[in-house]
Amino acid sequence: MNPVYFDSAATTKVRDEVIDTMTAVMRNEYGNASSTHSFGRSSKALIEQARKNIAKQLNVSAGEIVFTSGGTEADNLALQCAVRDLGVTHVITSKIEHHAVLHTVEQLEQSGSAKVSYVKLDAHGSVDLKDLERLLQIPEKTLVSLMHVNNEIGNILDVERVGQLCKDNGALFHCDAVQSIGHFNMDLQAIPIDFLAVSAHKFHGPKGVGFAYIRKNSGLRPLIFGGEQERGFRAGTEAVHNIVGLEKAFTMAYANLEADRAYISDLKQYFITQLQSKLPNVQFNGLSGNLEKSTYTLVNVRLPIPPEKALILLFQMDLKGIACSKGSACQSGSNKGSHVLTEVLSDRDLESPSLRFSFSIYNTKAEIDYAVSVLHDFITS
Amino acid sequence: MNPVYFDSAATTKVRDEVIDTMTAVMRNEYGNASSTHSFGRSSKALIEQARKNIAKQLNVSAGEIVFTSGGTEADNLALQCAVRDLGVTHVITSKIEHHAVLHTVEQLEQSGSAKVSYVKLDAHGSVDLKDLERLLQIPEKTLVSLMHVNNEIGNILDVERVGQLCKDNGALFHCDAVQSIGHFNMDLQAIPIDFLAVSAHKFHGPKGVGFAYIRKNSGLRPLIFGGEQERGFRAGTEAVHNIVGLEKAFTMAYANLEADRAYISDLKQYFITQLQSKLPNVQFNGLSGNLEKSTYTLVNVRLPIPPEKALILLFQMDLKGIACSKGSACQSGSNKGSHVLTEVLSDRDLESPSLRFSFSIYNTKAEIDYAVSVLHDFITS
Repeated sequence: MNPVYFDSAATTKVRDEVIDTMTAVMRNEYGNASSTHSFGRSSKALIEQARKNIAKQLNVSAGEIVFTSGGTEADNLALQCAVRDLGVTHVITSKIEHHAVLHTVEQLEQSGSAKVSYVKLDAHGSVDLKDLERLLQIPEKTLVSLMHVNNEIGNILDVERVGQLCKDNGALFHCDAVQSIGHFNMDLQAIPIDFLAVSAHKFHGPKGVGFAYIRKNSGLRPLIFGGEQERGFRAGTEAVHNIVGLEKAFTMAYANLEADRAYISDLKQYFITQLQSKLPNVQFNGLSGNLEKSTYTLVNVRLPIPPEKALILLFQMDLKGIACSKGSACQSGSNKGSHVLTEVLSDRDLESPSLRFSFSIYNTKAEIDYAVSVLHDFITS
Repeated sequence: MNPVYFDSAATTKVRDEVIDTMTAVMRNEYGNASSTHSFGRSSKALIEQARKNIAKQLNVSAGEIVFTSGGTEADNLALQCAVRDLGVTHVITSKIEHHAVLHTVEQLEQSGSAKVSYVKLDAHGSVDLKDLERLLQIPEKTLVSLMHVNNEIGNILDVERVGQLCKDNGALFHCDAVQSIGHFNMDLQAIPIDFLAVSAHKFHGPKGVGFAYIRKNSGLRPLIFGGEQERGFRAGTEAVHNIVGLEKAFTMAYANLEADRAYISDLKQYFITQLQSKLPNVQFNGLSGNLEKSTYTLVNVRLPIPPEKALILLFQMDLKGIACSKGSACQSGSNKGSHVLTEVLSDRDLESPSLRFSFSIYNTKAEIDYAVSVLHDFITS
């Protein structure tokens, strides 16, 4: 068996068509998009076409799409600049957001720029909307930052409802949509949303590029100052190849969305069924075992393994050529456990090891059979 | 004649070897460098090898190299975070820095975070070191931000001397080296320097990637918060292909430095000689006509053309397939003239149009002959 990649929530294999497009751009379109000569105009046209195509799919204006170096920068842009420029003094978020949001709001709190409230979560790790409504009554200029799809347990936020609650209470709404854009349709006109963060490498695009959706006339100013790129909103020479690669991956993701979704959902369902039949005591964290209420792209599995054996579980999976993860890749550098599971699980459940398996169109049922058999052998050996 | 690209100071043609390396990485090494499985470790190894090779060339530790989305982000990181984290209340810079520095310090001044002093320039646009010394006496925690090679007029700063002055006076020194790294050797152990900003696309690498050199134990914290990437110093999934492309271009630039320098210097000298012989009243802005005191990569030419004709000069060059520029590409989005020439030239000299021609190994003398003949025909027609 070739190495099996079940970590598409960390990053995805780049589509061949994306690589080919990027290579052609690097070879033939090396002009600086801010230059006024033909080399520059040609690069500029590529970027503006990409912006238009993305905006159309999301039902927004091209001017509301700001290309960034990725989802993390887009999150920082919305959060840091809303506090700095819009008089926001109160941020509502949850303890299971990505660190790009959590560490940014912690910094805002530590510097005395804003106070932070953490909304309650229910037993499955979903946002308690009653508690959100309560927090929205605090008489401060408020920004709500909640992710659309949780990257570890896959729970899907009701963005329409959260957006409406924010609107009704005069709060701004920022949504980290890094795990959802490219996998779910979003009509940003239909949702009262102010800011959104997106990353290309989560939907088979290149790393190091993403975008922020910033609602028109937001009043936000740049996080990174300098040249007049992105209508003066994000300085730095545009990474033409990366932006074009982002757009190619984005367009392909939406062109194939229903078929890809059906294929990947089927893989996830098959994985769940196989696990349940081979490992009777398996549990699914958050709502990830529920195909209706979680993303079809991942499942977070809690395994009936004693603690001493659990220590070598991930090592064993890696040894057998299976790439999966304990949680977000972005926190793998540290030795701490998943902050998401720490919030969501009981102390007793935290004693059992959990693994996140995340899927893409490049996975097969044969790979799932292999992974389930490796898990089964490890547990029963 | 094929289109002639004389705008390598804006951005450079990407080397084929760089494109090939990046393509291979995108195809085969798509793991998230923060993942602990084999896909992730393999990406991580590529990044750390790149960091090591770059650090070795600059004679610093690998841990002092922080990959960013480009030179602009690196400038913002050094400036914004030095003020936020190191108690800097006074920034000394010059009016002819790149906008990545100028607009950032303007923001710091407007927000009341630091006051800004602009060092005097001499008649050729070089920093007046006596005035710098005077400004360094101001009893505040000071950061000096001066570029190594000016991107419009090519003047070279005596970084050793400025670094020593800063050190002697207890000031920090940040250097925007975007136009020099890849074209000049720099031993960062020999120069008392705290922060440096570098961009890959200025030396035949990809756009959207660069690095900051941040001296060990600087006390700086991130500009972009989130995951633990770059030793917790710059969050966001690493753009492996771009970082590897940066390193390939960097390594090739230094492997061929002397030969490339000789070739490009010869082109510049030839261009100057030809211009002087065909257009007797031509002038060179800043020190760009002096091969000893300016970078060998560019020349900034002031042409004896009446104002009404000057308006269509750049248009005419473009029409003839010659890409050159009025100034920095990063300000082309706006309709203002060059802020550098506005500082350096007299009002009378500003009435004559100026063009920046910048060169690379991909240019030829035949291209120079063609450009000079186009200029000659335009002026005498």
